[in-house]
Amino acid sequence: MTNWQSTAPAGMMARFRQVRQQTLALCRGLSAEDMLLQSMPDASPGKWHLAHSSWFFEQFVLGRDPAYRPRDPAWHYLFNSYYQSVGPMHARPQRGLLSRPSLDEVRGYRQYIDDAMSELLNRGDDPELAALVELGLQHEQQHQELLLTDIKHAFWCNPLQPAYRAALTDTATAKAVPLRFVDGREGVVEIGHRGEGFAFDNETPRHRSLLHPHALANRLVTNAEYLAFVREGGYCEPGLWLSDGWATVQREGWQHPIYWQDDLASEFTLAGLRGLDPHEPVCHLSYYEAEAFARWAGARLPTEAEWESAAQRVAVDGNLQDEQRFQPRAANGDAALLQLYGDVWEWTASPYINYPGFRPLPGALGEYNGKFMCGQWVLRGGSCVTPRDHIRASYRNFFPPHARWQFAGLRLGQDR
Amino acid sequence: MTNWQSTAPAGMMARFRQVRQQTLALCRGLSAEDMLLQSMPDASPGKWHLAHSSWFFEQFVLGRDPAYRPRDPAWHYLFNSYYQSVGPMHARPQRGLLSRPSLDEVRGYRQYIDDAMSELLNRGDDPELAALVELGLQHEQQHQELLLTDIKHAFWCNPLQPAYRAALTDTATAKAVPLRFVDGREGVVEIGHRGEGFAFDNETPRHRSLLHPHALANRLVTNAEYLAFVREGGYCEPGLWLSDGWATVQREGWQHPIYWQDDLASEFTLAGLRGLDPHEPVCHLSYYEAEAFARWAGARLPTEAEWESAAQRVAVDGNLQDEQRFQPRAANGDAALLQLYGDVWEWTASPYINYPGFRPLPGALGEYNGKFMCGQWVLRGGSCVTPRDHIRASYRNFFPPHARWQFAGLRLGQDR
Amino acid sequence: MTNWQSTAPAGMMARFRQVRQQTLALCRGLSAEDMLLQSMPDASPGKWHLAHSSWFFEQFVLGRDPAYRPRDPAWHYLFNSYYQSVGPMHARPQRGLLSRPSLDEVRGYRQYIDDAMSELLNRGDDPELAALVELGLQHEQQHQELLLTDIKHAFWCNPLQPAYRAALTDTATAKAVPLRFVDGREGVVEIGHRGEGFAFDNETPRHRSLLHPHALANRLVTNAEYLAFVREGGYCEPGLWLSDGWATVQREGWQHPIYWQDDLASEFTLAGLRGLDPHEPVCHLSYYEAEAFARWAGARLPTEAEWESAAQRVAVDGNLQDEQRFQPRAANGDAALLQLYGDVWEWTASPYINYPGFRPLPGALGEYNGKFMCGQWVLRGGSCVTPRDHIRASYRNFFPPHARWQFAGLRLGQDR
Amino acid sequence: MTNWQSTAPAGMMARFRQVRQQTLALCRGLSAEDMLLQSMPDASPGKWHLAHSSWFFEQFVLGRDPAYRPRDPAWHYLFNSYYQSVGPMHARPQRGLLSRPSLDEVRGYRQYIDDAMSELLNRGDDPELAALVELGLQHEQQHQELLLTDIKHAFWCNPLQPAYRAALTDTATAKAVPLRFVDGREGVVEIGHRGEGFAFDNETPRHRSLLHPHALANRLVTNAEYLAFVREGGYCEPGLWLSDGWATVQREGWQHPIYWQDDLASEFTLAGLRGLDPHEPVCHLSYYEAEAFARWAGARLPTEAEWESAAQRVAVDGNLQDEQRFQPRAANGDAALLQLYGDVWEWTASPYINYPGFRPLPGALGEYNGKFMCGQWVLRGGSCVTPRDHIRASYRNFFPPHARWQFAGLRLGQDR
Ligand SMILES: [Fe+3]
Ligand SMILES: [Fe+3]
Ligand SMILES: [Fe+3]
Ligand SMILES: [Fe+3]
Repeated sequence: MTNWQSTAPAGMMARFRQVRQQTLALCRGLSAEDMLLQSMPDASPGKWHLAHSSWFFEQFVLGRDPAYRPRDPAWHYLFNSYYQSVGPMHARPQRGLLSRPSLDEVRGYRQYIDDAMSELLNRGDDPELAALVELGLQHEQQHQELLLTDIKHAFWCNPLQPAYRAALTDTATAKAVPLRFVDGREGVVEIGHRGEGFAFDNETPRHRSLLHPHALANRLVTNAEYLAFVREGGYCEPGLWLSDGWATVQREGWQHPIYWQDDLASEFTLAGLRGLDPHEPVCHLSYYEAEAFARWAGARLPTEAEWESAAQRVAVDGNLQDEQRFQPRAANGDAALLQLYGDVWEWTASPYINYPGFRPLPGALGEYNGKFMCGQWVLRGGSCVTPRDHIRASYRNFFPPHARWQFAGLRLGQDR
Repeated sequence: MTNWQSTAPAGMMARFRQVRQQTLALCRGLSAEDMLLQSMPDASPGKWHLAHSSWFFEQFVLGRDPAYRPRDPAWHYLFNSYYQSVGPMHARPQRGLLSRPSLDEVRGYRQYIDDAMSELLNRGDDPELAALVELGLQHEQQHQELLLTDIKHAFWCNPLQPAYRAALTDTATAKAVPLRFVDGREGVVEIGHRGEGFAFDNETPRHRSLLHPHALANRLVTNAEYLAFVREGGYCEPGLWLSDGWATVQREGWQHPIYWQDDLASEFTLAGLRGLDPHEPVCHLSYYEAEAFARWAGARLPTEAEWESAAQRVAVDGNLQDEQRFQPRAANGDAALLQLYGDVWEWTASPYINYPGFRPLPGALGEYNGKFMCGQWVLRGGSCVTPRDHIRASYRNFFPPHARWQFAGLRLGQDR
Repeated sequence: MTNWQSTAPAGMMARFRQVRQQTLALCRGLSAEDMLLQSMPDASPGKWHLAHSSWFFEQFVLGRDPAYRPRDPAWHYLFNSYYQSVGPMHARPQRGLLSRPSLDEVRGYRQYIDDAMSELLNRGDDPELAALVELGLQHEQQHQELLLTDIKHAFWCNPLQPAYRAALTDTATAKAVPLRFVDGREGVVEIGHRGEGFAFDNETPRHRSLLHPHALANRLVTNAEYLAFVREGGYCEPGLWLSDGWATVQREGWQHPIYWQDDLASEFTLAGLRGLDPHEPVCHLSYYEAEAFARWAGARLPTEAEWESAAQRVAVDGNLQDEQRFQPRAANGDAALLQLYGDVWEWTASPYINYPGFRPLPGALGEYNGKFMCGQWVLRGGSCVTPRDHIRASYRNFFPPHARWQFAGLRLGQDR
Repeated sequence: MTNWQSTAPAGMMARFRQVRQQTLALCRGLSAEDMLLQSMPDASPGKWHLAHSSWFFEQFVLGRDPAYRPRDPAWHYLFNSYYQSVGPMHARPQRGLLSRPSLDEVRGYRQYIDDAMSELLNRGDDPELAALVELGLQHEQQHQELLLTDIKHAFWCNPLQPAYRAALTDTATAKAVPLRFVDGREGVVEIGHRGEGFAFDNETPRHRSLLHPHALANRLVTNAEYLAFVREGGYCEPGLWLSDGWATVQREGWQHPIYWQDDLASEFTLAGLRGLDPHEPVCHLSYYEAEAFARWAGARLPTEAEWESAAQRVAVDGNLQDEQRFQPRAANGDAALLQLYGDVWEWTASPYINYPGFRPLPGALGEYNGKFMCGQWVLRGGSCVTPRDHIRASYRNFFPPHARWQFAGLRLGQDR
């Protein structure tokens, strides 16, 4: 059924525990009240993330065994996100209204699932099972990232502007390396998942893609560079924007990135309000903002194929969730291309559509990615809230062009 | 400044403690998560009610002393409801996003206020102070009622339909007394607050009012009576409705009272889902529904003057918050007019406007009632969630005509 | 069926012709394109007014004769306004999409109706018929006024700001008489229609009403007076406004009356843009604005009973549609109370509700007035676009509090 | 400045006259009222199309001569569509409120422009001028098509469902040829405009594109085929739809193509209501519907590169505007690929983005196409309302995925 290979059962058990515990670790310091917050329809409460990522195992792994008894059948409706083929679901914008089950009950639910999974994983070797478990863990890691992006937005909505982790304010004030452009490959290349290790269905099939002459910036765009765009009237000049983007700027009154203060001197972070570091990558841009900046800079966004062909030759490393910094960091190092992984997701010039020959996973899991292939743009490379063992060169993230609450920025590209 | 007389300081201290403790008592069984729920812009979280009713003392009583130090100046913005003249305020629909301050901190805030109030009340006699404290307590009692209406709505939004107090399901299944009409007074009467005891500014001044020949029903309309209206197509016949009401019925898809199930056999209560008791007064009607029912029944709603002139001769008693039933009860007894107080608020035929010669309280407190005198209708008599020492014949409650989440029903009236 | 008496058939024929011709006369100078404009859901195209006022005769007068054949049965759906009991209707906001039937066809429709009506009126005496015809004519006169208010709004929406009648710019620049307050009657008075001549059902029954001591201003509020309110920050001070009014001011960005230019020196009129005459009555206010102005002026709006008891003793005369000025005029003359009739409709402090003992007309005509008795406020006295033989002391006009496009202003009142 | 070559001045004059006259010819039978209709924000009144396409010459051709005097400077604001760099513009949803200037004045405006253009074209050879004139004519042809799509929608909104041209009802009832799939080219091909003749900037530059193995259907999908999809529950099965598409189906209550009647037996056409011809191509689909149908049919939409590489070898011919049928026609003939041009625009699987190396036209004309490259999908091949000399293999049309009012359908594609 699945097309990826997975770890052996023994390793799988360890990995299962690690990922599941990491989710809980991310919730340390968040109260039951914090975990209930839903600040907008696009975001979900932390408690819901905890429950839904457990439900995923119940639905798609444990539920394959007819003998399995769900923790509470009524919760299926509450914690199904968008899988129409397994039944109706609680309306997304109302997730913040679920004070019951309580956070304690949801933690109990997680334990219930963990116990059942342990038992299942102990039963022995089953490649199909291992593949599904890996999918469930990758899914959970996506929700780890969302948990952090969502709580950041929710805290920002509170006039008290509370911090998620106060210690994060200790930031090295390194200088970003100078910007240069690095020529990319040209001609027919192969992109997409190669068939070893896990990948989502939307990364497949591996296929040939034609690259035109181009170059990529060696690092991400910095706050200082974006600040120049703001100061020079970027948000007042319709000629720099897509038509939909300009309409959004006008309608919403955008004047700077969402978490910047109006003084253009400080920004809201997971450590609370702090001074805007000019060397850090600009973060929390919409596609509209990233695209307008690139035009203003006389450049363009890279395509996802350009990005992937470059990233294929770079090992996954960088300022990822594992660093627990939860904030992008100034580019430094000698590599030709820096910051490909981590720091901020990079908006690309590529609409999110299927690869040639794409087949969604069979059954309800086919709803995971395929049905969203309209109206969104691809982002690449992961961010400072993405787990290191979750990201890879072929990974395709996607969001609508107005979305600002993700850890998203940009790298410039150029025609050659 | 105020025009009511109040209890002596000693009695005031006891009363202060009683009211404040009752607010907390109503929160028993509600978790921090429950207390954060805001299910619609018109409702507020329980925690917010706790904090705002404390802020009210801070702002309007304690703050008169320049030496008073507020618990946290930043909270002023959060817990000011709508008093524009004391500064800007947190947007009402976003009250549910305040996970911080926590419920514990808000309880601490209450204690802080209680301590400061104790000290102040101990300082000795001050009629002005006593009047303001009484206003603050009456205000708090209003929020007691709102806390219950709001949590009922929030729990109803949860597909699990949790109960606030399970024990409430034990209901006597009494039969309602038969319906009859009782002639009211005719000619010029006096209504409005007389100047003894507390009243809100909108109940003043006492003034003459001209009553036309009329009669009032001896009891409230029952579920059985309203059910007949539903079953005979009341929600499908535009001729029975006000134009705005019919537009609302169509747009919102109303087919029965908000908390009734589609089977017309059960309803959601503070004790969870239970069978619809035909003898209980119908509850949670909008003005549109009450008015349409009255037309269908060949009757009309009473005016507020008709209601008050009748209620002036009846002592305050009935199924009020003090009974802790939190659900209306079938009419019984020998009195000519039953259920004037308690059970459900009674929609009247009177738009909520000022009495002749009305003067709002001076200063910011003038915003308490006066600025809402547009687009709302008067309700009279209190409900099963109104404290007994809060209601009186001259009390004027008011809500917009589409509001359904209050404990509101109706008594029929007639021209004679 | 009806409760008014009407002219004898012979006089009725003349009156019928006069009113019908006047409607067409008001359309002179308006092209077929102008007559199709619908600038907002609350307004209707001129062509629709022409057709609907003819349909009214077809539906409620001619249709009583089973032998009558409608001009086109399909038009019933198009030109029924809101009479649910005679069938479904075209959606109000879509009236501007009816390029067919053409203006010429609608004029033909009018002729068709006029011919049929002539024949019917010639058949001889029938008091019931005469009463219905009079209702149809009064209805048509209401639409005459709406036709002018609606085209004014539509032309104002055109950046070219075209004039309806250029000659209107020649305005005498008289000075308004000084403001004084005149004591009104006190105690129980009678208001409502007396039973002679035509009246709408909502003016009945004549009934006793209790007046409290009060005074009325001798004239309407002028542009100069309202300008002072604007200049002194009236639109920036929440304390002057009803809560709903302030929310509207903020949401809509109101800074002055709708047809004033931002320079506060000129206004859009049916004669196009012209200088703001300080002596003319302020016009095109919403209830919110009128009410806020009165508060700012230390006064209040009169109640409708106060207004009517004063107007009962004043003959109908003034700057009405018959003057063809279509713009209010500075108050002058010796009478105690000036401008009661004509110039601008006067917002009152009275919500639009039924009189005690009110009975709507039987059948579909009962939908004419009664079902709108919610959320609106009463206006009195007619305006410069109201026909003289249409207005009377008991006449009750009504609009929602945010409506600005009517010729509405205010007269101050006071408690005594 | 431009990158296309154009006709010699002499031929240009003839072409200019032909295109301009054709626009007027399409308006025959439409009254001034019809020409004012704007049935939704996405559509424009016919009169506006007439004026705007003339303004385009004034702004971008005549205005290059400093001596040129515009017909009326105030009209610039009215008839600028979306060119922010030449100044602000009348709000798009309000175009239907411009009764002035009248249709006659707009016709006069056209004549004024035609006269000035004649004089200009007579001045002699100027390749730059010729290129701009050609752009203006291609622009005008786009508005010819929009004029027809917009009036079709407007007439459909009229409950009388008037016909634009009654004669169109005479339709041959040919049978569509059987469906087969034809293999397409594979490997690197060239697409985009080659540099001869006119093309819009978005068709450039010609560039290499990599085609994966695929096949295209020999003809368009028919009404009969789409009817099977409807009858078999296509609009009730979420699994067939994109997530956004399903949300739209639910929210809007879609149950069949927009102009089909609920009986699934007739459809609204420019000739009024007529029986649904099973052999005609299905028309007026949104992208969502086209994409869902393709999935249901076990196929997919072609990419624009697949389509163009096939169309490059086929001469432009088909059921285009020149046929004056204004309705698609059943596929017939021997060619391998039928109906590539005309009948209905074909939704492709390609989001509308820039070609590699794309440069928008300089100056304000750069706003023509480039700023819309977000959130839309490419359609290819023209329709029965597209002029024959306007369409070509490289032509890229684009609309948002929910748009239904265009003459749009689909051809199936397949992986091989
Ligand atoms: Fe998920
Ligand atoms: Fe309050
Ligand atoms: Fe009417
Ligand atoms: Fe255009």
